[in-house]
Amino acid sequence: MVQKAVRMNEGRTRVEMVVSTIRQRIAGRSLTPGARLPSVRGLAATLKLSTSTVVDAYERLVAEGAILARPGSGFYVANQAAPFALAEAGPKLDRAVDPFWISRQSLEADESDLKPGCGWLPPAWLPAEGMRRGLRTLARADGPALAEYGSPLGLPPLRQLISRRMGERGIEASPDQIMLADSGTQAIDLLCRFLLEPGDTVLVDDPCYFNFHALLRAHRAKIVGVPYTPSGPDIDLFAQVVAEHRPRLYITNSAIHNPTGAALSPVTAHRLLKLADQFDLTIIEDDIFADFEYTPAPRLAAFDGLDRVIHIGSFSKTLSASARCGFVAAKPEWIDGLTDLKIATSFGGGRLTAELVLNVLSDGSYRKHTEMLRQRLSRAMSEVSAKLKALGITPWLEPQAGMFLWCRLPDGIDAADVARAALEKKIVLAPGNAFSLSQSATNFMRFNVSQMLNARVFEVLGEVLGRQGTSGRD
Amino acid sequence: MVQKAVRMNEGRTRVEMVVSTIRQRIAGRSLTPGARLPSVRGLAATLKLSTSTVVDAYERLVAEGAILARPGSGFYVANQAAPFALAEAGPKLDRAVDPFWISRQSLEADESDLKPGCGWLPPAWLPAEGMRRGLRTLARADGPALAEYGSPLGLPPLRQLISRRMGERGIEASPDQIMLADSGTQAIDLLCRFLLEPGDTVLVDDPCYFNFHALLRAHRAKIVGVPYTPSGPDIDLFAQVVAEHRPRLYITNSAIHNPTGAALSPVTAHRLLKLADQFDLTIIEDDIFADFEYTPAPRLAAFDGLDRVIHIGSFSKTLSASARCGFVAAKPEWIDGLTDLKIATSFGGGRLTAELVLNVLSDGSYRKHTEMLRQRLSRAMSEVSAKLKALGITPWLEPQAGMFLWCRLPDGIDAADVARAALEKKIVLAPGNAFSLSQSATNFMRFNVSQMLNARVFEVLGEVLGRQGTSGRD
Repeated sequence: MVQKAVRMNEGRTRVEMVVSTIRQRIAGRSLTPGARLPSVRGLAATLKLSTSTVVDAYERLVAEGAILARPGSGFYVANQAAPFALAEAGPKLDRAVDPFWISRQSLEADESDLKPGCGWLPPAWLPAEGMRRGLRTLARADGPALAEYGSPLGLPPLRQLISRRMGERGIEASPDQIMLADSGTQAIDLLCRFLLEPGDTVLVDDPCYFNFHALLRAHRAKIVGVPYTPSGPDIDLFAQVVAEHRPRLYITNSAIHNPTGAALSPVTAHRLLKLADQFDLTIIEDDIFADFEYTPAPRLAAFDGLDRVIHIGSFSKTLSASARCGFVAAKPEWIDGLTDLKIATSFGGGRLTAELVLNVLSDGSYRKHTEMLRQRLSRAMSEVSAKLKALGITPWLEPQAGMFLWCRLPDGIDAADVARAALEKKIVLAPGNAFSLSQSATNFMRFNVSQMLNARVFEVLGEVLGRQGTSGRD
Repeated sequence: MVQKAVRMNEGRTRVEMVVSTIRQRIAGRSLTPGARLPSVRGLAATLKLSTSTVVDAYERLVAEGAILARPGSGFYVANQAAPFALAEAGPKLDRAVDPFWISRQSLEADESDLKPGCGWLPPAWLPAEGMRRGLRTLARADGPALAEYGSPLGLPPLRQLISRRMGERGIEASPDQIMLADSGTQAIDLLCRFLLEPGDTVLVDDPCYFNFHALLRAHRAKIVGVPYTPSGPDIDLFAQVVAEHRPRLYITNSAIHNPTGAALSPVTAHRLLKLADQFDLTIIEDDIFADFEYTPAPRLAAFDGLDRVIHIGSFSKTLSASARCGFVAAKPEWIDGLTDLKIATSFGGGRLTAELVLNVLSDGSYRKHTEMLRQRLSRAMSEVSAKLKALGITPWLEPQAGMFLWCRLPDGIDAADVARAALEKKIVLAPGNAFSLSQSATNFMRFNVSQMLNARVFEVLGEVLGRQGTSGRD
């Protein structure tokens, strides 16, 4: 029988805590396959919990297949390694800053829930009319377009269009250097499978997009961070970290950094590439926010000519997250191997969504749409920035484009506490430490300005901060 | 300068052979990162090739980043491990039976090329009208359906529909035990990431779907095979192999086995599950051909109740490979971890294709379509079987359903030679050893009857066999 939920510091039940503790020990191999678990009584005494709590936890682990019960003998770790409990495999984080938990909250939220912490635009901002036209056009397509597997690299006219658009940003990539993928994330995942050996080190920004932490954990990579500045990574610290840790990869955004909104400066870009050369570092430049820019920031892929830089793009943020479409541009010698991996693991992508995206991009409305998006975001950013400042919440920088404001909360306030309190009022927020490998953003929060045009968000923020400020932790 | 293509026994240029040899040594770690390569002269002498061939090969490997040139010193394996050259990482196969090469040939073939070796129906057999109606309906959907990320498990009404359909086949799975995926292959890939540690052993049928070999190679799994019989795997050999190798997983089809068309018998199913229990074996039951059946074969998932059996399905074969849609049904304790992995590595699936598939499945036309498909395939199978027999090509068994005929060629004929010769006449065939881990199907070929209703296929087969029979190898 599951105990009533008692709010512990992680907001979990006691049973969940015990389950989690045992899973961690198994994942970390301090309990190895076949090893005997502590007795129920023994563990209960150690953790100062009731034996029935431990019994419930052990029963759940048996149901999961992680442990076995041998009657009269006790509980044993299953002989086969337990499934890869990704959420347990990393450092034990407060749920409110755990990338897995935040992703679920955002993706599972009702339409009526307010989600200033999520990383996408509200559906109403996306070009529904363009999509509808594209779908009606697709309904008139020939049989093969509606039925066939995609070709290995992906729909040729869409790759040609992407090649032209990249050319407009100064990046030379022939259509045959471009491989379509389901999304930017899936493209990066495939690259990690292609380039990483287990235990390799990967460098990320601190702070960075929180799902990179989850993704790299899935690859069992060692993750190191480099602090981010308003003009890109701190280049002196970057040099030190790379010399010390010899990462295989560095993953970053050049334009509209997630979460800070900063843009890479030409000086930093140039020094970065020299260090990459010196240390044989491969760089993945995640450019999924490209169409939000007014003034293009330097692109590493443009300077480097796609030699050691791999360039990722996607239409999830500006067109639709529902029709999955992303792409990789890399040197030709790598595209072939990437394609083999794509076919082996998914037998290719969906031709239909590529045809749809091509339709929408080709009808001329997409450019107008992105212009309108940029203006709308610009207005929202001014408005939201002012309202946040009125609450004592101050942006770390004022981004020139994009949807994110990376803000410092009033002194001494823990963003995780604010996020927890807001969630009880059905508002999903994104506390800074979810983005920070070093957990050095306790006082920060990322706000998505497009999701904050409802007065209730500020009412609740005000209430929660008020309580936090005067009565300490909630 | 690339040498003219000289047809060697693998049909590759000499330069490609040298490149491939070095890549294999690197992948197999007989040449380790930083190690010095043989000198150009030395390797040329060893392989009895010209030094310019070796120079060209080394230059290609430098361009790829696999090796570095140190002027005056020679060539060295790159310090960073080379990217995972999946196609090189396994046993060196004749291209004609190499799963990577065959997949590419099939996926890259023009519509005018004939593809009896491919594993899907011609577009004209798939329900284009149903898809068009579904797309027009989707064009009238609300904004969120066209814009949003999918929920973590995937579109609820589609999972409910899949749950009902599985129930009709005797498999109990609540909608919350079902997770949508992009395809059957992607679902199996995710399960491998979830369940396998590198070096784990996976058991497959011999013969089996050739892309399983490619997929498992991507997971660096050790692969073992069990011979297949007309009623399922050879159960005595299965017991031996499992006892000896202790595989973590067994991947199989119960209905309409690929490539043989056989169906699992109830006796074999029952013995299989007892052995799975005894040896703590997890079974992935790939059921993507389910809708082709007349009389349902036993499903392991039905007997086992989704305890140690994981059930995979897809709409790629009967509805559309263009709108990617597959699913996993597994025990609830595993669904949660699988979902975390799905979000970390792809941030979820496409809501749009799920909405489209739901539309098409809900309008009542799909059942009529699959009935018609079964009848059409039945007629094609009789017709094609008779024509093949007239050429001395005899089916190993006459399947009760599906699209595949697994056939023995006339004595002494190597199916790889037949496939090579047919490709020169723009016909893509699937020789038996691509499907057989033990390479014991030299004399076999898999024919897709839906792709053989063009007289040219039989003309070319006849020519090629005639030449093979009378003048030895082509």
